[in-house]
Amino acid sequence: MTTTVVAGNPKPGSRTLDAATRLATSLSGEQPDHVIDVVELGAGLLGWGDPAVKNAVDTVSSSNLVIFASPTFKATYTGILKLFLDQFATGEGLRDVTAVPLMLGAGPAHAMAPDLLLKPVLVELGATCPVAGLYLIDSTYTEDSRIADYAQRWAPVLHATTRTEAS
Amino acid sequence: MTTTVVAGNPKPGSRTLDAATRLATSLSGEQPDHVIDVVELGAGLLGWGDPAVKNAVDTVSSSNLVIFASPTFKATYTGILKLFLDQFATGEGLRDVTAVPLMLGAGPAHAMAPDLLLKPVLVELGATCPVAGLYLIDSTYTEDSRIADYAQRWAPVLHATTRTEAS
Amino acid sequence: MTTTVVAGNPKPGSRTLDAATRLATSLSGEQPDHVIDVVELGAGLLGWGDPAVKNAVDTVSSSNLVIFASPTFKATYTGILKLFLDQFATGEGLRDVTAVPLMLGAGPAHAMAPDLLLKPVLVELGATCPVAGLYLIDSTYTEDSRIADYAQRWAPVLHATTRTEAS
Amino acid sequence: MTTTVVAGNPKPGSRTLDAATRLATSLSGEQPDHVIDVVELGAGLLGWGDPAVKNAVDTVSSSNLVIFASPTFKATYTGILKLFLDQFATGEGLRDVTAVPLMLGAGPAHAMAPDLLLKPVLVELGATCPVAGLYLIDSTYTEDSRIADYAQRWAPVLHATTRTEAS
Repeated sequence: MTTTVVAGNPKPGSRTLDAATRLATSLSGEQPDHVIDVVELGAGLLGWGDPAVKNAVDTVSSSNLVIFASPTFKATYTGILKLFLDQFATGEGLRDVTAVPLMLGAGPAHAMAPDLLLKPVLVELGATCPVAGLYLIDSTYTEDSRIADYAQRWAPVLHATTRTEAS
Repeated sequence: MTTTVVAGNPKPGSRTLDAATRLATSLSGEQPDHVIDVVELGAGLLGWGDPAVKNAVDTVSSSNLVIFASPTFKATYTGILKLFLDQFATGEGLRDVTAVPLMLGAGPAHAMAPDLLLKPVLVELGATCPVAGLYLIDSTYTEDSRIADYAQRWAPVLHATTRTEAS
Repeated sequence: MTTTVVAGNPKPGSRTLDAATRLATSLSGEQPDHVIDVVELGAGLLGWGDPAVKNAVDTVSSSNLVIFASPTFKATYTGILKLFLDQFATGEGLRDVTAVPLMLGAGPAHAMAPDLLLKPVLVELGATCPVAGLYLIDSTYTEDSRIADYAQRWAPVLHATTRTEAS
Repeated sequence: MTTTVVAGNPKPGSRTLDAATRLATSLSGEQPDHVIDVVELGAGLLGWGDPAVKNAVDTVSSSNLVIFASPTFKATYTGILKLFLDQFATGEGLRDVTAVPLMLGAGPAHAMAPDLLLKPVLVELGATCPVAGLYLIDSTYTEDSRIADYAQRWAPVLHATTRTEAS
């Protein structure tokens, strides 16, 4: 099983990236195979056909399990994450990819954003999104048990869909 | 595998019910085990503890695959369907249930409603909703190939999650 | 200016009703002209043509400012409120009505529900919804300053739209 | 009254920009005072503090009426539009700005996107969004009457809120 983390934070090496990596590790039992820090793709995201962007898209498309992570900007995912998602083919770009929407915020008020706002974009790209999205508080996720609790609750369902797709 | 259809149309024996039954049959290969036409539960839906309502809730909670179907009223699911969903326990009422949101409308303008509006309620109840919701045009669904196309695309993923849950 | 409160809580005389009445009073400077506790309309809500339901719909349709209030059930508004909203004509039922979506919850996690879920239904009915929805914590709204802060921030905009419609 | 058009299409001089300009003209009776084709801001959008981006933000923040326009990418607004919106201050960046969400698509299936997805971002920035969003079919909007119909229905309400804010 190939696991990939996509972090859409305008700041490189963000807590978003860290939290997504922890979640991927918790869900799969090992470090993710690929980590894409979207901001490092730079200005190539603003057009079409950039080789590094295309390479990142191909990595994601050929993964079995992908964590799509974003901080909460203006009560939803970031523009930079959406720029990257805009590069995938509608209905097909995430076919056979099991995707998990993850968002981080400073407080609990935007806890509905992963399921109401980020997940529908992933579904539109053809992803299988079998479980509830996860919303973490950015100042406490390294200490609380939310990631572990989530993995315990949902890993079996995620593995069921990824096994099927890989077969 | 136990398959159940839930139709939330204020008119008994509606096209909503028919379409949901066709979808269940197409996904599972056989007629659904249970069909719940919510309106027939009557005024017991307005309170808590009605025996017939409780029985219907138990039937749904113990199913493996459930189609939740609604016509489009005011650009979203009906009040009567939500009345029934309000009877389930948050986070647990649909645990281990694989759920499919289905909506019908007179035209295509509300095609986003199953994924943006109905699915999040099912997820809140703990359901596994692994695939895109389905939106059908109520005047053409018996003739077009939308249900068959949907079943071909998504039945394998739905079966993967239901098999796991049943094991 | 005619101000009306609509409370969609299955329990009569709820905190939902109280909070909506406080908000209406704070926004208009006087007690609301009409208070509709939807649950008191009873089983007539399940069909069409009930005289008491029709009367309540007419009261709302002819108001200038209406607070639509709901507790948070399953991360969105209640089925009983939606049953009542289903009685209005699409696009016209709330024409020239300035509407405010208000929701109460036990904690902050569902704070996005008024704007993402309840407001779009009111807009579909033709309402003017000029300002952000309000989400209150049901255990603290009588003591905190959220209603007063909201009224100070948004009353001028609400009055601008209601004045226009009334002219 | 200062009217501004913001078009978030990765292609410069797009139909999105044209449709938004037509809508602004139809609503205000004259050509918009400012037209911001977001893609022309280039790579400065990927960070913070770019002078041209800041200038564009200031133009929008000090306008009375702003059309925010996007093509439909992956069933919602574009990443490039969201990049620009991420530059505004939460709750304050669009204070006293009356905003209209406009989206264009190839077909009717995404007609709910302006109200369910784009409008909440504008509200989060503090905008007054008094009326329903507009969704246009990109191949027919120059010939059909949708823009004119919308202006006739909603211009009075928009003017009521903009007049207040300007006073």
